Amino acid sequence: MVNRRIAEILRSGQPDESPQIQGWVRTKRESKGFAFIEVNDGSSLANLQVVINQDLPDYEAILKKLNTGAAVEVTGVLVASLGKGQRIELKAEAVKVYGEADPETYPLQKKRHSFEFLRTIGHLRSRTNSLGAVFRVRNACSAAIHQFFQERGFLWVHTPIITASDCEGAGELFSVTSLDLKNVPRTDNQAVDYTQDFFGKPTYLTVSGQLEAEVMAMAFSNVYTFGPTFRAENSNTSRHLAEFWMVEPEMAFCDLEGDMDLAEAFLKYIFKFVLETCPEDMEFFNQRIDNSVLATAENIINNQFERLTYTDAIALLEKADVKFEYPVSWGLDLQSEHERYLAEQLFKKPAIVTDYPAQIKAFYMRLNDDEKTVRAMDILAPKIGEIVGGSQREERLEVLERRVLAQGLNPEELWWYLDLRRYGTVPHAGFGLGFERLVQFMTGMANIRDVIPFPRTPQSAEF
Amino acid sequence: MVNRRIAEILRSGQPDESPQIQGWVRTKRESKGFAFIEVNDGSSLANLQVVINQDLPDYEAILKKLNTGAAVEVTGVLVASLGKGQRIELKAEAVKVYGEADPETYPLQKKRHSFEFLRTIGHLRSRTNSLGAVFRVRNACSAAIHQFFQERGFLWVHTPIITASDCEGAGELFSVTSLDLKNVPRTDNQAVDYTQDFFGKPTYLTVSGQLEAEVMAMAFSNVYTFGPTFRAENSNTSRHLAEFWMVEPEMAFCDLEGDMDLAEAFLKYIFKFVLETCPEDMEFFNQRIDNSVLATAENIINNQFERLTYTDAIALLEKADVKFEYPVSWGLDLQSEHERYLAEQLFKKPAIVTDYPAQIKAFYMRLNDDEKTVRAMDILAPKIGEIVGGSQREERLEVLERRVLAQGLNPEELWWYLDLRRYGTVPHAGFGLGFERLVQFMTGMANIRDVIPFPRTPQSAEF
Repeated sequence: MVNRRIAEILRSGQPDESPQIQGWVRTKRESKGFAFIEVNDGSSLANLQVVINQDLPDYEAILKKLNTGAAVEVTGVLVASLGKGQRIELKAEAVKVYGEADPETYPLQKKRHSFEFLRTIGHLRSRTNSLGAVFRVRNACSAAIHQFFQERGFLWVHTPIITASDCEGAGELFSVTSLDLKNVPRTDNQAVDYTQDFFGKPTYLTVSGQLEAEVMAMAFSNVYTFGPTFRAENSNTSRHLAEFWMVEPEMAFCDLEGDMDLAEAFLKYIFKFVLETCPEDMEFFNQRIDNSVLATAENIINNQFERLTYTDAIALLEKADVKFEYPVSWGLDLQSEHERYLAEQLFKKPAIVTDYPAQIKAFYMRLNDDEKTVRAMDILAPKIGEIVGGSQREERLEVLERRVLAQGLNPEELWWYLDLRRYGTVPHAGFGLGFERLVQFMTGMANIRDVIPFPRTPQSAEF
Repeated sequence: MVNRRIAEILRSGQPDESPQIQGWVRTKRESKGFAFIEVNDGSSLANLQVVINQDLPDYEAILKKLNTGAAVEVTGVLVASLGKGQRIELKAEAVKVYGEADPETYPLQKKRHSFEFLRTIGHLRSRTNSLGAVFRVRNACSAAIHQFFQERGFLWVHTPIITASDCEGAGELFSVTSLDLKNVPRTDNQAVDYTQDFFGKPTYLTVSGQLEAEVMAMAFSNVYTFGPTFRAENSNTSRHLAEFWMVEPEMAFCDLEGDMDLAEAFLKYIFKFVLETCPEDMEFFNQRIDNSVLATAENIINNQFERLTYTDAIALLEKADVKFEYPVSWGLDLQSEHERYLAEQLFKKPAIVTDYPAQIKAFYMRLNDDEKTVRAMDILAPKIGEIVGGSQREERLEVLERRVLAQGLNPEELWWYLDLRRYGTVPHAGFGLGFERLVQFMTGMANIRDVIPFPRTPQSAEF
């Protein structure tokens, strides 16, 4: 018999149909002569209510096994539900218990568990309502990202995870090595003998696929990456992970205007997609986690994002009737409190700030004619601050070489990146989106460790 | 003016339309009073032919810049082409050159380059016909994979890249560390002091997401991973990469039959998808790279895969009228020559071999009642050998614990994996597909380094 998913039955199952379902017991309620069990198979937040009558052979013995967490297969007949809370329920004709879950030791009993506790059982926490909803929404975000770019003819390109270049200077790097750490080989002058390492030189985990994505954009015009990136930054906060996924589109023949247009369309598309495909999960987050997530999603979808320059943003912040913790002054980077003031209080919608001072931004961003600012853009969102960071890239060889040197980088290591400007260079632009920040933003989850299945953070690489 | 992609113009552009295109010059042919340039924007293998008449202002000066590799923007009018080889061409009304490419130094001149040479210019090689076709097909394979699973309600789950468990024993591991290799800290008894490392213990790059995918399948029923995996194996062959992408679906309430059904449907789907979306690129591979790729694709799509046990396969190999290099005997693993004999010569189509001897397979595969074989399956394909490896997983706690110990692994490190059998265990199964092997198989490319944008191999981590 073909198994049906519970989400599909709840949506479109009709009385008198005879489905078979398989899933895990969430709760059991015993009554006189019958029992209700709620079964979940992960396809939806809602459970299917199964009614088991005492006529069922071995009723007592089976019931004893149907504790929270037990795995079951039920065949039966759908009937309209008389109870509140569900349209339809399954009258069991046969119940098979695959695996039990001892109520004395199974940690997920029917009660609220703290997210801190759930992190200690990362191998079981996806079986809860909240983490289940998070990972369904995470999947929907992923699907939306691929669909958005594939519809527009962008190629998904896999940029390398292991890299020999540390030239982006974007943060602290993890080393990757096949050397024996107990006995690192040395050269005559006591340096590490990297000729004995797997790649013959020092290698690291990537912090961004952008430079390689630019390579691919110079062949395919429009590409995107969607893969893991890494920071060995010792930040034990609710917003930092050592391993996180990033989305980085890169477009040839594109300037900062086109980049902003794409990023805005992209965010609207993802929020719309998730509201449409996961309405029940989003409703759950709005009720249980953060009662502003639905309003925030609607705000993103329905408003044209404000666009202003960094210089104008500084002027607005200087005029603001708010005490900021960090100073505001032209040349200083915007802090989270400033970003949130602009998006939440001033504009009450996402804002795109452009043309930041060159000295606080990366070497590859295109220098404006004022020689002081670069064609960078950050999208600031209510509640979370920066959600997207992008720029038009410097496509002029001589300007790029100047910027590389000014930031103390080695042009020789960047020979191939400079070659892209030597041969068939074009205006091009792209942006980066921290995927877990997006899921956090979408769901209202307070801690980023709860929106990735197996978080990697300082002193923690469990499961 | 909105830019149009060349693939779309070649497909559906009509005479008298006035598009703007942007791309890179592939070739230039000068004639009396006019010139042809072939422009490619990466959206297709075919170029758009642009005709430039000498009436164009600055004709001579512009023509001098239009060398192979130059970046151009052309606006003009589409006209039916009188020449052979194209339906339509673009009569230029304005030509803008963004970036030139000096013919004296630009390495990609109009001639055949060896794939070895192209690997030394990994930042430019995607601009060639062959690598361009490879990466379009690679993208199509990726898109097909997501579409296949999303249509069937599977969640894409991101399993960790950095892992503290080396318990799968699947090969040599890369270490990930934030320690200074020049000065590795020591404990009092001269061991490495991992308490000072980022995660507080030894960590590695993952070799497979399967164990974590099983965690997720026990909550969502059907999931898949699609991400990078790593082997620090010193194999300098045309089939090995140190960094490669893997696809690993995992299904709860699924046995080996269901696993084989899914894998077969999956392969057929991807081949069909790529033939439909990249016909021109596939035709190119068939003509230029390997004249069997189209027949192989049709073979996969149209034939029911042969299914036989390992024991039967050994009997067939023992009877075969072929001299094998490696011995054939029950208990030994199948070598590539044996796999290819079965698929290519005997069955002339893909074959699924099941129920391998337990001692040559991983600890997590379900033990058969004979206690000698496990519910493993490998799909062997003509031309390439093993393309998919999977199994039904051991869901019985006591059997799994026995197998863990028998293979010399530490049950304490696998506590969470064993917990999946302790609480709500179910029959489940999954498989792994090496993504680059698939792309190699699809395209006929001889060397795996030419189907991933930036290959990582022993002594090589360029770009």
